[in-house]
Amino acid sequence: MDIIQSVRWTDDGAGVRIIDQRRLPGELVERDLRSLESLCDAIRTLAVRGAPAIGIAGAMGLVALLPNGTGAREPVLADARQLAATICATRPTAVNLSWALQRVLGRGERTAGDAAALLAAMREEANAILEEDRVMCRRIGEHGISMMRDGMRVLTHCNAGALATGGIGTALAPIYVAVERGWKIEVCVDESRPLLQGSRLTAWELRRAGVPVTVLADGMAASLMRERGVDLCIVGADRIAANGDVANKIGTYGLAIAARHHDVPFVVAAPTSTVDSATATGDEIIIEQRTPDELRCIAGVPTAPIDVDVYNPAFDVTPAPLISAIVTDRGVHRPPYRFESR
Amino acid sequence: MDIIQSVRWTDDGAGVRIIDQRRLPGELVERDLRSLESLCDAIRTLAVRGAPAIGIAGAMGLVALLPNGTGAREPVLADARQLAATICATRPTAVNLSWALQRVLGRGERTAGDAAALLAAMREEANAILEEDRVMCRRIGEHGISMMRDGMRVLTHCNAGALATGGIGTALAPIYVAVERGWKIEVCVDESRPLLQGSRLTAWELRRAGVPVTVLADGMAASLMRERGVDLCIVGADRIAANGDVANKIGTYGLAIAARHHDVPFVVAAPTSTVDSATATGDEIIIEQRTPDELRCIAGVPTAPIDVDVYNPAFDVTPAPLISAIVTDRGVHRPPYRFESR
Repeated sequence: MDIIQSVRWTDDGAGVRIIDQRRLPGELVERDLRSLESLCDAIRTLAVRGAPAIGIAGAMGLVALLPNGTGAREPVLADARQLAATICATRPTAVNLSWALQRVLGRGERTAGDAAALLAAMREEANAILEEDRVMCRRIGEHGISMMRDGMRVLTHCNAGALATGGIGTALAPIYVAVERGWKIEVCVDESRPLLQGSRLTAWELRRAGVPVTVLADGMAASLMRERGVDLCIVGADRIAANGDVANKIGTYGLAIAARHHDVPFVVAAPTSTVDSATATGDEIIIEQRTPDELRCIAGVPTAPIDVDVYNPAFDVTPAPLISAIVTDRGVHRPPYRFESR
Repeated sequence: MDIIQSVRWTDDGAGVRIIDQRRLPGELVERDLRSLESLCDAIRTLAVRGAPAIGIAGAMGLVALLPNGTGAREPVLADARQLAATICATRPTAVNLSWALQRVLGRGERTAGDAAALLAAMREEANAILEEDRVMCRRIGEHGISMMRDGMRVLTHCNAGALATGGIGTALAPIYVAVERGWKIEVCVDESRPLLQGSRLTAWELRRAGVPVTVLADGMAASLMRERGVDLCIVGADRIAANGDVANKIGTYGLAIAARHHDVPFVVAAPTSTVDSATATGDEIIIEQRTPDELRCIAGVPTAPIDVDVYNPAFDVTPAPLISAIVTDRGVHRPPYRFESR
């Protein structure tokens, strides 16, 4: 199975090679980021997207951009701090990005020796971030396989796949593992308005991996359940509260209600790092409103009166009682959920 | 209040003036249809849309296109039959279109006298169709007002408004009547993928009439109910079965499930002619699949892999138990619904 790898080193190790997700599904364009400008531009314009993938691209980019110095350590650290600050500022709210950059920087600061030793250690740290993400995805897939069976029709939302991570994704990981076992799985995916990550990205990466996929508009999910039947819904998560309430891409909550109405299991798959046990319930989660223009035009063509009022939340909160199971890299959690502080 | 009139006579009565709905919401273009070609083209390409509006445009167009003859009746009837057949063939499944054309034709056939008498009678019949539709809309509005109260936030789907009818619409009729009474009503409307009739048409006609309107993506409706609160959902209908099951634009069923989950009244408003008492339940309704391209690209830009499988039903069936009331021009029907043969 050919599962796409969204972020990796260029062949010479001096740059970061990403799949330019702005060009999907039209064409597969790989882009080598070898300058601070190109790296920041790629992160800012969502050429690379998905919290884990952004963190990995930032960490690897930071390392790739450091001059291949020998000699004193201090100039290297000074360069690294400045680069990290600039990269981090491209998406200030992306927690994974600042976390990954800090990890690489901290490793350099803690490493004894000259510039060469620092550079080697920091590169090792960036590799570790990528590798841990790969392992995390794989574990979610292996725990999540208990939700799957041969011949299933699975409905997912948005993109929580290989394109969003360093590995085989989160919500899509159990699907990829099932297909690796030779099971026949049909995936249906909501297009996921307004940014269409479902039809543009999830459909693209599943097809590339040879997994049968069907695209539907978000308003068709309930009808699909009633008319054709859906065996499982599986989605990712942006944040999971201590009580199991889940913030995820807008549209998730409506899907969960429709799944409950049709007795379809509704499963969330996400890394343990998504669990925010300091947030007691979903009610504490502030819902960000995105720009109205996402609903006023598509590809430059007006689809609504040009200055009409718009309701455009980035995500919604699905209350825990609607969630059949939460799969993380640590295992399968069942209700009642109680995520303790780590 | 300036409620748009979607179909009317040209000033000289020799043509049909429509609002070209293909150009909305970008610009308001009125188009005078004075030839068979322009009339058929307008119906075929959805410049005029909505079952009642199509029927009215067809009936008025048939009359407008007949040569202003004097003398023998037979040539007029022969012309009329040929014109009606050509117009009808533009949308062979549009029941309202063939019904309206037959009505005008039948009136001509039953009318005694020469060409001038026939032409006058047929024009009267076309006017009657338009006028009856106006009255029907108004009645739905006046019966539906019992569902409304001052200060409400109402959620609707697709376009069942003035643009789809000869009058003030069906689902939007109670809203217009409420606003005429001076009530403050806020309308929210799903964009209604794939063809976006909600954001393109409903938002446009409500704003033009001065009614506050907010557009949301279809996947956001449940979140809107939870976060901001919705007091009433009201939608139109394509067909109503004897037991009250309702076929309507795809997305209606999911909205009804979300409304039930949030204890929001879910109301259907439609003309009595929509009731098909020969259809016992919604299970008997065949669901038409539309072209996959509607979900593969938007405005020519690919939004999914170019040959991906697509689930694209034109409408869905909402079971009667999810429907709080059905408002027709005859009154408000409450469950259990039992529509008798007329």
